[in-house]
Amino acid sequence: MTDAKTPNDTANAMWGGRFAAGPDAIMTAINASIGFDRRLYAQDIRGSRAHAAMLAAQGIITSKDADAIREGLLTVLSEIEGGDFPFSEALEDIHMNVEARLKEIIGEPAGRLHTGRSRNDQVATDFRLWVRDQCDAAIGGLRALIGAALAQAQAGADWVMPGFTHLQTAQPVTWGHHMMAYVEMFGRDLGRFQDARKRMNESPLGAAALAGTGYPIDREATAHALGFDRPMGNSLDAVSDRDFALEFLSAASICAVHLSRLSEELVIWSSAQFRFVSMSDKWSTGSSIMPQKRNPDAAELIRAKIGRILGATVALFTVMKGLPLAYSKDMQEDKEQVFDAADSLMLALAAMAGMLSDLTANREKLEAAASAGFSTATDLADWLVREAGLAFRDAHHVTGSLVAMAEGKGVDLPDLTLADMQSVHAAITEDVFNVLGVHNSVASRQSYGGTAPDQVRAQIARWKEML
Amino acid sequence: MTDAKTPNDTANAMWGGRFAAGPDAIMTAINASIGFDRRLYAQDIRGSRAHAAMLAAQGIITSKDADAIREGLLTVLSEIEGGDFPFSEALEDIHMNVEARLKEIIGEPAGRLHTGRSRNDQVATDFRLWVRDQCDAAIGGLRALIGAALAQAQAGADWVMPGFTHLQTAQPVTWGHHMMAYVEMFGRDLGRFQDARKRMNESPLGAAALAGTGYPIDREATAHALGFDRPMGNSLDAVSDRDFALEFLSAASICAVHLSRLSEELVIWSSAQFRFVSMSDKWSTGSSIMPQKRNPDAAELIRAKIGRILGATVALFTVMKGLPLAYSKDMQEDKEQVFDAADSLMLALAAMAGMLSDLTANREKLEAAASAGFSTATDLADWLVREAGLAFRDAHHVTGSLVAMAEGKGVDLPDLTLADMQSVHAAITEDVFNVLGVHNSVASRQSYGGTAPDQVRAQIARWKEML
Amino acid sequence: MTDAKTPNDTANAMWGGRFAAGPDAIMTAINASIGFDRRLYAQDIRGSRAHAAMLAAQGIITSKDADAIREGLLTVLSEIEGGDFPFSEALEDIHMNVEARLKEIIGEPAGRLHTGRSRNDQVATDFRLWVRDQCDAAIGGLRALIGAALAQAQAGADWVMPGFTHLQTAQPVTWGHHMMAYVEMFGRDLGRFQDARKRMNESPLGAAALAGTGYPIDREATAHALGFDRPMGNSLDAVSDRDFALEFLSAASICAVHLSRLSEELVIWSSAQFRFVSMSDKWSTGSSIMPQKRNPDAAELIRAKIGRILGATVALFTVMKGLPLAYSKDMQEDKEQVFDAADSLMLALAAMAGMLSDLTANREKLEAAASAGFSTATDLADWLVREAGLAFRDAHHVTGSLVAMAEGKGVDLPDLTLADMQSVHAAITEDVFNVLGVHNSVASRQSYGGTAPDQVRAQIARWKEML
Amino acid sequence: MTDAKTPNDTANAMWGGRFAAGPDAIMTAINASIGFDRRLYAQDIRGSRAHAAMLAAQGIITSKDADAIREGLLTVLSEIEGGDFPFSEALEDIHMNVEARLKEIIGEPAGRLHTGRSRNDQVATDFRLWVRDQCDAAIGGLRALIGAALAQAQAGADWVMPGFTHLQTAQPVTWGHHMMAYVEMFGRDLGRFQDARKRMNESPLGAAALAGTGYPIDREATAHALGFDRPMGNSLDAVSDRDFALEFLSAASICAVHLSRLSEELVIWSSAQFRFVSMSDKWSTGSSIMPQKRNPDAAELIRAKIGRILGATVALFTVMKGLPLAYSKDMQEDKEQVFDAADSLMLALAAMAGMLSDLTANREKLEAAASAGFSTATDLADWLVREAGLAFRDAHHVTGSLVAMAEGKGVDLPDLTLADMQSVHAAITEDVFNVLGVHNSVASRQSYGGTAPDQVRAQIARWKEML
Repeated sequence: MTDAKTPNDTANAMWGGRFAAGPDAIMTAINASIGFDRRLYAQDIRGSRAHAAMLAAQGIITSKDADAIREGLLTVLSEIEGGDFPFSEALEDIHMNVEARLKEIIGEPAGRLHTGRSRNDQVATDFRLWVRDQCDAAIGGLRALIGAALAQAQAGADWVMPGFTHLQTAQPVTWGHHMMAYVEMFGRDLGRFQDARKRMNESPLGAAALAGTGYPIDREATAHALGFDRPMGNSLDAVSDRDFALEFLSAASICAVHLSRLSEELVIWSSAQFRFVSMSDKWSTGSSIMPQKRNPDAAELIRAKIGRILGATVALFTVMKGLPLAYSKDMQEDKEQVFDAADSLMLALAAMAGMLSDLTANREKLEAAASAGFSTATDLADWLVREAGLAFRDAHHVTGSLVAMAEGKGVDLPDLTLADMQSVHAAITEDVFNVLGVHNSVASRQSYGGTAPDQVRAQIARWKEML
Repeated sequence: MTDAKTPNDTANAMWGGRFAAGPDAIMTAINASIGFDRRLYAQDIRGSRAHAAMLAAQGIITSKDADAIREGLLTVLSEIEGGDFPFSEALEDIHMNVEARLKEIIGEPAGRLHTGRSRNDQVATDFRLWVRDQCDAAIGGLRALIGAALAQAQAGADWVMPGFTHLQTAQPVTWGHHMMAYVEMFGRDLGRFQDARKRMNESPLGAAALAGTGYPIDREATAHALGFDRPMGNSLDAVSDRDFALEFLSAASICAVHLSRLSEELVIWSSAQFRFVSMSDKWSTGSSIMPQKRNPDAAELIRAKIGRILGATVALFTVMKGLPLAYSKDMQEDKEQVFDAADSLMLALAAMAGMLSDLTANREKLEAAASAGFSTATDLADWLVREAGLAFRDAHHVTGSLVAMAEGKGVDLPDLTLADMQSVHAAITEDVFNVLGVHNSVASRQSYGGTAPDQVRAQIARWKEML
Repeated sequence: MTDAKTPNDTANAMWGGRFAAGPDAIMTAINASIGFDRRLYAQDIRGSRAHAAMLAAQGIITSKDADAIREGLLTVLSEIEGGDFPFSEALEDIHMNVEARLKEIIGEPAGRLHTGRSRNDQVATDFRLWVRDQCDAAIGGLRALIGAALAQAQAGADWVMPGFTHLQTAQPVTWGHHMMAYVEMFGRDLGRFQDARKRMNESPLGAAALAGTGYPIDREATAHALGFDRPMGNSLDAVSDRDFALEFLSAASICAVHLSRLSEELVIWSSAQFRFVSMSDKWSTGSSIMPQKRNPDAAELIRAKIGRILGATVALFTVMKGLPLAYSKDMQEDKEQVFDAADSLMLALAAMAGMLSDLTANREKLEAAASAGFSTATDLADWLVREAGLAFRDAHHVTGSLVAMAEGKGVDLPDLTLADMQSVHAAITEDVFNVLGVHNSVASRQSYGGTAPDQVRAQIARWKEML
Repeated sequence: MTDAKTPNDTANAMWGGRFAAGPDAIMTAINASIGFDRRLYAQDIRGSRAHAAMLAAQGIITSKDADAIREGLLTVLSEIEGGDFPFSEALEDIHMNVEARLKEIIGEPAGRLHTGRSRNDQVATDFRLWVRDQCDAAIGGLRALIGAALAQAQAGADWVMPGFTHLQTAQPVTWGHHMMAYVEMFGRDLGRFQDARKRMNESPLGAAALAGTGYPIDREATAHALGFDRPMGNSLDAVSDRDFALEFLSAASICAVHLSRLSEELVIWSSAQFRFVSMSDKWSTGSSIMPQKRNPDAAELIRAKIGRILGATVALFTVMKGLPLAYSKDMQEDKEQVFDAADSLMLALAAMAGMLSDLTANREKLEAAASAGFSTATDLADWLVREAGLAFRDAHHVTGSLVAMAEGKGVDLPDLTLADMQSVHAAITEDVFNVLGVHNSVASRQSYGGTAPDQVRAQIARWKEML
């Protein structure tokens, strides 16, 4: 859209007699936005209805006109939602389409709707309302996903699995603990969308083309009617700002990183070599002839979404770079990026929540993997420092010797006898067995936020209360 | 698509009896690609026809079956192109849609088309053919754009304008010289698309799922039939590779940077303060009440395309990061990014060619701007070094004094008298006036590739011969 | 750093006897981080001192050891700040460097510092503290910048200038109004850094390698000592999370977009064609022979910073994509990106604040530009609707005729006589002249946030109170 | 650097008397480039020596002056390489530093070096020479890496391993085949760097500030002396172009994607669950107490480099977006990005070549994994179609039944008896066993580029010949 169109005219006539030639096919293709901005119809109509009511309340138009406009817009809304609306390419954008149809329905008063506003503040309002809705959708999607992760955590608060660093077993942790790590991440995502929503919740409506208007409009009233906290404080900024979209995209990108990390784990855990989890049939595809093959398609598709969302983010940052105030047509490139990123995010959140709800952890496999590789050697070394008073360096030396002994015998650390242990260091007592073995190991990690089942249950309780 | 689908089944049946539950709505939404990959229909049919012909030539299927398949595929093609094809979401992707329809048309022989190939090499072939077509489209679009720039250069080979650094007038240049700078850029773009096309011009067909096949297929034959230079040398690579898309996107991004630079200049040059150029009505929008306002919408929209194309590039790079071989479902996210970037690029190239063809340079404004600000002071200093034998530092000092004198008198350098000049430095002669004034200045820059009209005309001639 | 290093050993010995060969030169080059992570020295020492105090308070180490450690660390701090510290490549990272030196200074008790923590939570704590400091720095930089913009706005609350859309004059606005648009942007940036700071202000310390620890540590105490609001709730998340860096980078990117927009305007406004502003000598470079040339170097360099900061953002997003929990070595690539982005942002904020403070607006040029091009035609049309009761469409028609008349006479709209006006439409009265002319125009835009000087002054007052 | 500095002056004096105030500390910090562009010293000196020789050959300066300049520059070169050069922040950039020192060494003739060139073409030449060197370095690094991959492929041309899709076993392939997939990728990278090198191999020298020069310089001669194929054809383009850097970064990003994919595989293959490979001690780190733990640090660090390199790429694209011609100071942000990306790439290539050379594949683990999961079910189905004449659909049904039978008996397909087989379908003959079992399976995939050991050896031979 451009800043000074006469809304009542048809598009061809719009540029008036001054332009000998109409825009040709290429210009139409590069210029028209109705192909994508029709998604803003509900926000556009909502904004116009609020504007009309305010105009009447301020005595700028008559109540009769306002009523006709507001009723007519509801008719347009139901036509669009019913699928009957004749969208026109020639009318370029959703705003022109709605206004032209309104004029057909109610006639001359339609022209008064545009009093005291302009295409620039109108589109800024519509898009902001749309992005605000997406914040709400993301918050809802995150709550559902957190719910699914909490359920997994609760079920497996004491299931033991390997804690990895570098994808190498480092120390045993619990399934619940691992799930709760994602709850923390998604919880921060929630906070980011809440903050973004709050910051964007100011109304551009009434900024007009860029300078404000001489009509005695009431921006507080329209802001209030549209659920905004207040009108934006500067009309130039109101029509030039796309921070709300950039902040939404940034929050979405961080959330998509989290989703990609969990997806990666699910893909790896689904491999024949790991078999830590089984995907349900709903979220995977199989092979008609290889019965054990279950491709984690959904996890892979979710993993890929960070690419798409980060790409949209880079796109809008690059578009906005170096644009002088106020409106430049470059800014028309904002919507498709945000639409696509929002759709991708909501789909990924829903798919991950569904996949996680249906996921079956293979408890035996997890525990067996946790027990392999002397994963409690660190516990042994810590015991030697803490209980037997050895220096860090000495404790490591003794532990190394005991691991070597166990490796030589083909057993794990808890399988050594006390005599075996004491042959390496005399200060070792029966007590040492309380920290060996993966269950003892995890139970001992009682520090706040640690992997001990009690701690995990406390984390779960904390989150349930918070939500 | 997945790697081991039975192509003749309907999608619901595809995952067979093993899966108690069908994929639900979310999975369908995240999984289906028919919404976008239908754009590959022509490539898909072309690849299948080549494959069928080869299978018959190798005696793997009968000539009768091959003929039925090849004819049937032409029917499918005409149905799609006629707009009569019943695309089905349930059939997930374009490949399943085409095959299912082929089966309806020709019956049982349709099932033999998939002999010795798999979905993985099929989709790799289709997409590669599509991207190759886009290289050709970009090359065509660039040729047209170069043609438009050459025409501008030819018309204004000796029109003088300011040469800017930091958007400050530095030295006079010619309009033709400025236009030819873009010809060089677009010429390099052309080379990049040609190189990319050459590198991607190898056939994945016959790589099968990933390991090759035991059927005695002839990959040379299908490669040849599809215009590829040779078959790809490794079947794992053939189904895992998306370099061709990444390289296309990279070349498109560089080209889009060039378009953004030219667009930026056109926007600035169209401002009331510059008025260097007038956009034609076709490529701008106006105001019904402000006659002088002509918004450079097309230039702004083209300027924004680098955002979109760079975003798509980042998206695919991020998707491909860290994917193990061979096919992962993440790679399904490749197409929409490339489709969108290619569409954006072709549109931007066409719009820029059109806009440039219709552009009117304001010759008087350009020359007046070039003459302002003592823009030939550098020429004067150079003359003092070259002809009067002054040291660089002394020449600068003398020039500074003469500029100050001219500024004091409110005139430009060529307006000073010889006496004025000699009052500052005695070695100055009448000859100095040959380098002062913007026309003298540009005429003097005879170094290869310089701004002298003769040099510019030589550049134009060089390019015309090359193309 | 890796997860299970014995901190007291030297780097070469670290991997012990198991590794026949030491890491060779390439491995050292790709692995070592001391070249950049030395910037964390103050945070590292601060964290270790808090940890030691807590260990003593919990009775895990003796007070004597804790005192020795805490004193020794102060010595290390003063050595580093004094430039005397012998950084060692062989010791790989800042943490090993500090610990090895501490051991040299205080001997054996140094080994007890690492009790109940690990390299993983240590580095997470250090880096988080560093990024938190950068949030504070950004907030400080933004306050200074907002101050500079407010001062400009106050000085020119009623200076008239063109309000642009598409870089075409649209309507007159005030200089103060334009400046206040940036105050709004920088104000939102401030809020984003405040929110990010708040969200990141949780302590990872005590998460140990990933699972928590069996030592009876007090994570609340160390969190409190380090100014954190609370300990992080999940130890796996604590060592795996880099959200705080991603959120900082995202906020920095949005801020850098704002800086790029203002820079772009300053570059354009500094051109010979605009001459809206003069840069001070401090923030531009000149030519020794072309006196009028003043290159807006600082503005251009600031404009470029969005590239650098967005690049760092993309880098870290891409690094984090698809990383399984908990720590992977990939995450070592986090610091240089954030260091560079933070440095770039702080420098750009300081430079912009300085440049803006020194900027001279050319009031006459601004007003002359605002008056050109019938920029109050919209006001005329609005008057016709509002006061003379014309329909929108008719008002536009009348306005177009009057503009054409003025254009024909070579004058501006306020220069037409009332008789001229009434010859086009009889309903026009003397009152119309109250909205014509740029001062009348801006004065009339009294809607909240509008460009009227009173409104601008109200905006300024609002901001001054808020800060 | 700026476009019209007088090179002989000191920096403070540089902007002359017009500027009352010197640039303050912030301006120095944001403006100076000597901190990074000193890396161009060798290219700068090489370019200047070529320029001086040409000036003398053309009679523009005396041979005596040229000799003094050329000798003096060699002295500067040896001072820098000897570490004795006193770099000065006040002199801003490498070019000023070299020239100031040259003047100290040879006196007044130093001033004549700058005849017929400018800072703009000088810096463009230096940077282009540097990037060209990096193309050569990348080509060298890729050759070494391809060599390492070929050696692995040769050693394991017939070792059987699982071919994965979705990280699920799909079909058996050979180790050599998998390695050769990467040879193809790195081979394409090589081609991209070669193409980029060729395209950038044109000389900007002699473009002067932007317009060319009036001195009778010989650009062919300097181009030839510096190893360029020809002078660039347009002087405005010569100083404005950064395509060579963008193309280098794009090629580096694609190469880094390949490295990230191989690294990801190495990390996964090193896990306790896979144990497909063992890293050598050189390229991993261990734990002093957990002997089996070997962290694949180098692979993880290489995997992360795509983030860094893609970030640099985005940075430069964003910087260049929308810059008007010719030189803008924004372009000073080009170097650090390319320096960092080039360093990262060369290090990653060297580390990967080293890691791959030292890598031990666990042949037994690979074969055992390949044999699990009925991985030759596809071969069986294909045999049924090809040899027994079944329809695709029927062959799949029979295969499914046989797999179910084998699964029920707890055996693999080759372990079923012929009678078992014939009980499902009578047409099965003894011949079927020739395609069952992983060695039979891979041996059968004889299509060009397939996984059969003979095909792999042919691929290796083809590459050895090519290199």
